[in-house]
Amino acid sequence: MQKGLLLVVSGASGTGKGTVCKKLLEEIPTLFYSISATTRQPRIGETDGVEYFFISVDEFKNWIAEEKFLEYAEVYGNFYGTPIHKIEERLQRGEDVLLEIDIQGALNVMKKRPDGVYIFLLPPSLEELANRINGRGSESPETFSRRFNAAKNEIAVGEKYQYVVVNDTVDAAVEKIKSIIAAERCKVKRNEFLFEKLLEN
Amino acid sequence: MQKGLLLVVSGASGTGKGTVCKKLLEEIPTLFYSISATTRQPRIGETDGVEYFFISVDEFKNWIAEEKFLEYAEVYGNFYGTPIHKIEERLQRGEDVLLEIDIQGALNVMKKRPDGVYIFLLPPSLEELANRINGRGSESPETFSRRFNAAKNEIAVGEKYQYVVVNDTVDAAVEKIKSIIAAERCKVKRNEFLFEKLLEN
Repeated sequence: MQKGLLLVVSGASGTGKGTVCKKLLEEIPTLFYSISATTRQPRIGETDGVEYFFISVDEFKNWIAEEKFLEYAEVYGNFYGTPIHKIEERLQRGEDVLLEIDIQGALNVMKKRPDGVYIFLLPPSLEELANRINGRGSESPETFSRRFNAAKNEIAVGEKYQYVVVNDTVDAAVEKIKSIIAAERCKVKRNEFLFEKLLEN
Repeated sequence: MQKGLLLVVSGASGTGKGTVCKKLLEEIPTLFYSISATTRQPRIGETDGVEYFFISVDEFKNWIAEEKFLEYAEVYGNFYGTPIHKIEERLQRGEDVLLEIDIQGALNVMKKRPDGVYIFLLPPSLEELANRINGRGSESPETFSRRFNAAKNEIAVGEKYQYVVVNDTVDAAVEKIKSIIAAERCKVKRNEFLFEKLLEN
C-alpha cells in the first residue's frame, strides 16, 4: 500500500496561505490538518486542539525531550512546534497530512523528511503583495518598507521548495495543489510496491 | 515565459499506450503530437505525416548526419526516429509536446533531455496483461510465454521513469496524466522566471 503524502504548504506573509489551506481542507475531507503546539496564550476565539494545542513551557520541553516534534522554534519568546506522532500514524494508514507552517519550519522539515511535498505560495505580483501588507494596517512608511522587504526576502527562499503555486485566485491555487497531490501519488518512488506486485511471480 | 513540457509516454506491450495517448490528445487540443520518421513501408490505411513520416533510408541517414533526431533506432532492419526540430520550436513557444515512444527510445531521450516528463503506463494486473497479449492472437503457449516474459522485463524498466500510471480505465489514466502536466508546470525549476520577476526591483 502507498503511504500518505506529507504536504507542506508555506508562503511569504501576505500570500494567503491560511485561506488556501482552509479551502483545500474543505475540498478534501480526508486530508488531515496537523495542529501545531504552542506555549503562547490562546487569543479570544481560539480553542485548544483547534487552532493550536496550547501547552505549558514545561510540557513543551518534555515533548522536545521525548522527540515528539518534527520541528520546533522559539519566536518572540514563545515556542511553536509540529507534533510528529499523529502525523506518522496517518501517513502509515495511507492518509495525506497537511502542514501549514512558516518558512523556517518548512526548511527544518525538509531536512528530516525528503519524502515530503513542499509547496510554496507566491503572490500574483509585488503590487498585490504591497496591497495586502498595507491592508493589515501598517502605521508608517518605515514599517511598511520593513515588512515589504521581509516578504521579498521570504519569497527568495521559495526556490528551495519543489513546487510553486501563484495565489491569483484561491480556487485556481487549490486546483493546482490537488493536481500536485495526484501527480505525487504517481511518482515511481512512491509506487515501488506496484512493481514488486507485478514482478513477484 | 515558461517553456512547454516534453511529455514522454511509454509502456510495456499490452498496456494500452496508444489508446491513452489518443484520448489525451482529444482532451488537450493544444498538445502537439510528435510524429516519428521511419524507413519501413506504410501499411494499408497509413498516411505520410499522420502515423509516421515515411522516408527513404538515404533520407534517414541524411537526417542523422544533420542531427535532426532526438533519438533513433534500427528495429528488424527498419529505422525509426524522433525528429527534434519541430519539437524544439513548440517547446520554445511554451506548447507541450507528446512523445509516444517505445521503452528503448524513451531511455535514450532521458539521457539527452533530463527536463522531460517521463510517464510509464502499467497494466492493472498480470492477469489483465496476459489477457491482452492473448487477445492479440498468440499461436502457441511458447509464443505467449515469450511475449509475456518480454512484457514483464519491460515493466521492470519502468522504475527508471519519474511517474507511473496504472491503466485500469483510459479515463482515469488520462486524468492522472493531466494532473502530472499541471503539477510539472508548478515545479520551482520551471518557474525561475517568476522569482526573477518578483525579486528584480
